[in-house]
Amino acid sequence: MKFRTVKGTRDFYPTDMAIRNWIVDTWKRVSLNHGFEEYDSPIFEYLDLFKAKSGEAIVSELFHFTDRGDRELAIRPEMTPSLARMINARAQSLPLPIKWFSVPRLCRAERPQRGRLREFFQWNIDIVGIDDAVTDAECIFVAVDFFRQIGLTPADIVMKINSRALLAALLSARGFAENRHADIFVVLDKRDKLSQDDFIKSVEKITQSGSRRGKEKTTLIEIGQAHGKTGLESLAGMAEGNKSAERELTRLRNVFDILNTLGVADYCEFDMGIVRGLAYYTGVVFEAFGKAGLKRAICGGGRYDQLLEVLGGPPMSGTGFGTSDVVILDLLIELNHVPTEATISKQNDFYVIDADANLFNEVLSLVAKLRKAGFAAEFSYRRQAIGKQIKQAAANNTRWAVIVGNEYTERGVLSVKDLDTGEQVEIPIRTFLDNPHAPMGK
Amino acid sequence: MKFRTVKGTRDFYPTDMAIRNWIVDTWKRVSLNHGFEEYDSPIFEYLDLFKAKSGEAIVSELFHFTDRGDRELAIRPEMTPSLARMINARAQSLPLPIKWFSVPRLCRAERPQRGRLREFFQWNIDIVGIDDAVTDAECIFVAVDFFRQIGLTPADIVMKINSRALLAALLSARGFAENRHADIFVVLDKRDKLSQDDFIKSVEKITQSGSRRGKEKTTLIEIGQAHGKTGLESLAGMAEGNKSAERELTRLRNVFDILNTLGVADYCEFDMGIVRGLAYYTGVVFEAFGKAGLKRAICGGGRYDQLLEVLGGPPMSGTGFGTSDVVILDLLIELNHVPTEATISKQNDFYVIDADANLFNEVLSLVAKLRKAGFAAEFSYRRQAIGKQIKQAAANNTRWAVIVGNEYTERGVLSVKDLDTGEQVEIPIRTFLDNPHAPMGK
Repeated sequence: MKFRTVKGTRDFYPTDMAIRNWIVDTWKRVSLNHGFEEYDSPIFEYLDLFKAKSGEAIVSELFHFTDRGDRELAIRPEMTPSLARMINARAQSLPLPIKWFSVPRLCRAERPQRGRLREFFQWNIDIVGIDDAVTDAECIFVAVDFFRQIGLTPADIVMKINSRALLAALLSARGFAENRHADIFVVLDKRDKLSQDDFIKSVEKITQSGSRRGKEKTTLIEIGQAHGKTGLESLAGMAEGNKSAERELTRLRNVFDILNTLGVADYCEFDMGIVRGLAYYTGVVFEAFGKAGLKRAICGGGRYDQLLEVLGGPPMSGTGFGTSDVVILDLLIELNHVPTEATISKQNDFYVIDADANLFNEVLSLVAKLRKAGFAAEFSYRRQAIGKQIKQAAANNTRWAVIVGNEYTERGVLSVKDLDTGEQVEIPIRTFLDNPHAPMGK
Repeated sequence: MKFRTVKGTRDFYPTDMAIRNWIVDTWKRVSLNHGFEEYDSPIFEYLDLFKAKSGEAIVSELFHFTDRGDRELAIRPEMTPSLARMINARAQSLPLPIKWFSVPRLCRAERPQRGRLREFFQWNIDIVGIDDAVTDAECIFVAVDFFRQIGLTPADIVMKINSRALLAALLSARGFAENRHADIFVVLDKRDKLSQDDFIKSVEKITQSGSRRGKEKTTLIEIGQAHGKTGLESLAGMAEGNKSAERELTRLRNVFDILNTLGVADYCEFDMGIVRGLAYYTGVVFEAFGKAGLKRAICGGGRYDQLLEVLGGPPMSGTGFGTSDVVILDLLIELNHVPTEATISKQNDFYVIDADANLFNEVLSLVAKLRKAGFAAEFSYRRQAIGKQIKQAAANNTRWAVIVGNEYTERGVLSVKDLDTGEQVEIPIRTFLDNPHAPMGK
């Protein structure tokens, strides 16, 4: 009888957990530093909630079940439906704008592959209730700041930014009817996954037959391949004279200006190929990519205007992004940037050692006092030689060994050994307990 | 179209999340201080894993489902089966003893009631691979230390301790065959839920008919009601001359001695009525109870000897306990001991304010620098009067308001206002940025 994890799910042994905690703790710290508050929702919801947001097709991607009360339920595959439900339930009383973050555990019934597992942790950031370039830029800034905090530079990563509103305005200005936009978005969204030839073939498939074909093709290729500063300038020419396109261009430029003020322009780049597959994005959208081998998006988000309404709430604009521990870890592995255990695991403050088995009670009493005072203090379950206990202390990533010898009961003193420097001092028990963190006068 | 949470599950709005984080963070800090390492497992496992531990009857208490690959899966209702699976998978390589903790999200398909929800967070502590009174005591000590850290005293809470091994030895010594022990355990386990009369009736039901009935009844009532120091002494008389009972009594007394050395004896009490319903406990067992209205156990655990073997692993003794955020919170509410938001929510370091809308870019740039340096810094999305922005800063639980006026560009200085004391100083931008946490020389 051998039991295993279900394929696509992971055990977190302490060394794995240390890395997960390091990622999640960094997410939380960055979120708090940028003024976001944490929230969470249940791991399962009514299946209807997910259908309402994504349609019937989502069901096959969910772990869903019927409970004893015949309720159709599903494990959450993303946080957005629950977020919308929560905001809608208190739309009248929540002060705006809402700046919230979460780190939900999510499950998706998909085939496990690189960067995608059946269970993962996602970092979600949302600013809801305000439609402003500052919040577009702030969301992007938060994501970039996280990458910066884990040591990734513009040489490692690029944040590609676009505006679906600008794209739509340009298409309308160039005579593409609105009911054709969705198909065009799909083709542009796949641009970087296709060869140049295949991209052009895809574009041809969505152009109208007849006399406009050639012109449409040229326009779509020009729009679809626009990127970087020159790309944005070429679109400026295209937008000229069309109020809606000009307005959206100004907004997008404003976002880039703010990112410059925020000091992260070197991570950011305009790219019309960033469309985001999900239907609910309406404004500025963005995706981060590793510059080395890992070509898939490692973080993505953007502005949504109808999401809350679709789930029964008031009309309210929001912007946000998500990224997962799985892609972040894949990227870090690829860049050889996974932190070492020593840098992320918690150091024990003290390891209390008896010089003689008779002193074990003194050891226990001292350990209890240190723990009560909020220090991490450990001891050996085995009564054994001092040397062996010191070895255990070192293996345990301990800062100081505290040695209890006969002088403890005879003269009321103990010895503290700094396991980094090897330095050892003898100090009165009382002095030590009054300020355990300063045994060496540090 | 209004969506709700499933009954028995909870949303965590930021104020709820702050309390959950306070509980969970305390669990984690206490665990680390006591030398435990964190681990985790997937939220769902093969249904067979849970059946192997608890039998077919468990299925109705689980949220279970069949995935597209026809695998029978279930959301974990407890952590122990996953813990056993993980240890068994690496039984050859994990250094012993294992000191692990976890804070899993668990789901149970039971009727929601006070202290029991369908989804909750559980704190689990386990020491595996060593069978020693020190580890029995250390587990109890960890639980008590948590209660102490959240401000609960022996006036609020009692840790009741027993030994199933002692109980079994006493029963055997008094002629109760081993195949009768399970039934007796069930009756003793329910002792505190029954009136004295009903308890005696339950005891009568499990006594043998015939001449031994009266004697059996007296013995069971004496054993079953033994508690406190006098109870332990009366059992000592009963154990005398029986080696097995004497050995287990010595072990239990040793546990109490160590708890005394650890400084938590005032929280602890012997009680033969603590049997723990779960079949897998074999040695010292314990349960904590609130002393006020909430009579149900708020934490429980004990030693298990066959658990790992049952799930296909090597024979290995372990001890551990669990408690949930739901019972802890119920207890704190009852004792009027829930911390205020101010004491547990993170304080913003800075709120950067513009004295004039033209200076907004300077505000953004300053905010970005503070956040980059790892500080929590916020600003207003609205350009408005200084007074309103300072109000927002205060509402945002901020330590210092940083005011950017014309002197910022003209003379390179800014003002820092301590929002606790109202004190305000003007300092050079460079000086402030070199050491933002000491604007007042603190």
